[in-house]
Amino acid sequence: MDENVIAFDKNQPIETDIVIVGAGPVGLFAVFEAGLLGLNCHLIDNLDKVGGQCAELYPEKPIYDIPALPYCTGQGLVDELMKQSDPFKPGFHLSQQADSLSKLEDGRWRLETSTGTVFHATVIVIAAGAGSFVPRRPPLENLEDYEGSSILYAVRRMEALRDKRIVIAGGGDSALDWTLNLHPLASQVTLIHRRDQFRAAPDSVEKMRQLVANDEVSLQIGQIKELKGQGGQLEAVQVKGSDGELYDVPCDVLLPFFGLKMELGPIAEWGLNLDRDLITVDTEKFETSVPGIFAIGDINYYPGKLKLILSGFHEAALMAQQAFRYCRPDEKLVFRYTTSSTDLQKKLGVI
Amino acid sequence: MDENVIAFDKNQPIETDIVIVGAGPVGLFAVFEAGLLGLNCHLIDNLDKVGGQCAELYPEKPIYDIPALPYCTGQGLVDELMKQSDPFKPGFHLSQQADSLSKLEDGRWRLETSTGTVFHATVIVIAAGAGSFVPRRPPLENLEDYEGSSILYAVRRMEALRDKRIVIAGGGDSALDWTLNLHPLASQVTLIHRRDQFRAAPDSVEKMRQLVANDEVSLQIGQIKELKGQGGQLEAVQVKGSDGELYDVPCDVLLPFFGLKMELGPIAEWGLNLDRDLITVDTEKFETSVPGIFAIGDINYYPGKLKLILSGFHEAALMAQQAFRYCRPDEKLVFRYTTSSTDLQKKLGVI
Repeated sequence: MDENVIAFDKNQPIETDIVIVGAGPVGLFAVFEAGLLGLNCHLIDNLDKVGGQCAELYPEKPIYDIPALPYCTGQGLVDELMKQSDPFKPGFHLSQQADSLSKLEDGRWRLETSTGTVFHATVIVIAAGAGSFVPRRPPLENLEDYEGSSILYAVRRMEALRDKRIVIAGGGDSALDWTLNLHPLASQVTLIHRRDQFRAAPDSVEKMRQLVANDEVSLQIGQIKELKGQGGQLEAVQVKGSDGELYDVPCDVLLPFFGLKMELGPIAEWGLNLDRDLITVDTEKFETSVPGIFAIGDINYYPGKLKLILSGFHEAALMAQQAFRYCRPDEKLVFRYTTSSTDLQKKLGVI
Repeated sequence: MDENVIAFDKNQPIETDIVIVGAGPVGLFAVFEAGLLGLNCHLIDNLDKVGGQCAELYPEKPIYDIPALPYCTGQGLVDELMKQSDPFKPGFHLSQQADSLSKLEDGRWRLETSTGTVFHATVIVIAAGAGSFVPRRPPLENLEDYEGSSILYAVRRMEALRDKRIVIAGGGDSALDWTLNLHPLASQVTLIHRRDQFRAAPDSVEKMRQLVANDEVSLQIGQIKELKGQGGQLEAVQVKGSDGELYDVPCDVLLPFFGLKMELGPIAEWGLNLDRDLITVDTEKFETSVPGIFAIGDINYYPGKLKLILSGFHEAALMAQQAFRYCRPDEKLVFRYTTSSTDLQKKLGVI
């Protein structure tokens, strides 16, 4: 992996044939199919590793329905696809989300990620599976006024939380782990959960209860109902206790840990035809309603669509044919087989 | 393999959900996809083994473009697909060609093979690749009058050729091997080839030349121009020599060995919409113009079609959904994943 993660100057746009949004199995195989036709690819993923759901949700789980692989694990599948795409030297840009998309004067696309990486590409391929994994946000009024300043869904720098009054909401591992990690640093830690049972590891729950018994952490059973503060700075959260009483908990920073969900994210704003949260495509090229933008894998929809990894592989192959026509308008597309073409075998580095 | 080759009483029709015409990679994977939905399959192939072109034409050749299999051989691919379909106990019917197709009164299909095996099936799936491998026939007038009686493209029973005057035509391994094998048995063997050079193994050519030198075999350089005989019984073939002269060679049995070619065969007479030698299908169910008959893999055509094995796999999966609706009209189709469904894992025999 590591040698494939290329560090680019973020002020310098990355020029490429194809940007693939999503580094799951289908995105990885698209690198292979594009590579056979001489097209180079960069991939963006919101996760900090390649493999999408296969690597994030079920790395150890068995998969039985990949053709000619009677058995593999999620991670095993990803490993083989990485090996297969490796000869084509894709660029990986992880822990960032595809954000804004616009047209360049020369007809190509400008795509910028949430961390400021900029691509100039002829073709965009959306292989984003069920979308990006994003934190589940609590249903509170004026939430967005505080997000990024007083409300954080991930702790990037612990030092920024020193001497703060911290409220952590949730009952899973993230909520418990951060309660344990932050209490020595913070001036005050309050853990709020809707009931006095926790999904987190029993050992963490036990440690938390000891801290509560020692008055080092405060545990409140209830739900946050209101945010109080101004100018993006929280002062307190109003909690409704299990007895129905309302009371305020002083708060500089709120950390809600309600798990991750999948959402389409900024792609939803790109002007593509959507069918619910899916992107409609044709079955000839798997192109969206916008020429030059393709959607393959679980994120697309067409009559007969099955959310099978193997269908995404097929879609990647047909997409690559049309991507070639956009990227190499002056060259003739010659369809060759890896079994018989020495040209392809050279590209694959096997002869 | 062997335990899967089921001997059926040929007078008793075989009742099944699906008959698959062609036991290549795509036909084998169709067994798997149908099996996941609880449908059982029988396969027919003209070859004497499973695997189609992969096993017949390039068993040792490397394949690099099967997703998540960075490298495999033609035979290796077939072996894995056999393993994957094995839990669903398909029936294999080899060395026979799908021949006549008709409708039964109950709406199902009656399919009979060239060797007389009869199936009653709800769904027919044509996964015949580039078609059947069949012998190349010489372009001679009245050829069909003698085929099967005096003209044979394969020797099934050597004893039937004892004491006959045999003419063998061709310059490859089959022609030379049968010249060597039949001359002790026949009353006369004449080998006819258009030029005095042979593609066959040098060792066989050398042996043949020794027999010719000893007057045990006759070698004629020239081309057969005319068949002479009556009532399906050859008496002689007329040969045009390299000097342009015409002369007769006495002949009871002619064995033309001009190699194999691919052809659609009797399927071409089934009333399906064709585009050249391909069967046109939709991209939702990969169904032909005749409801209940599907075509998947290299034999079908739709806009965007690529003759990739992986596309055939995708087509098999979507076909199986519609096949289920025909075979189980009263059951609800529930789409499950092998990763998470204990029901599917039981069918696969892994739990």
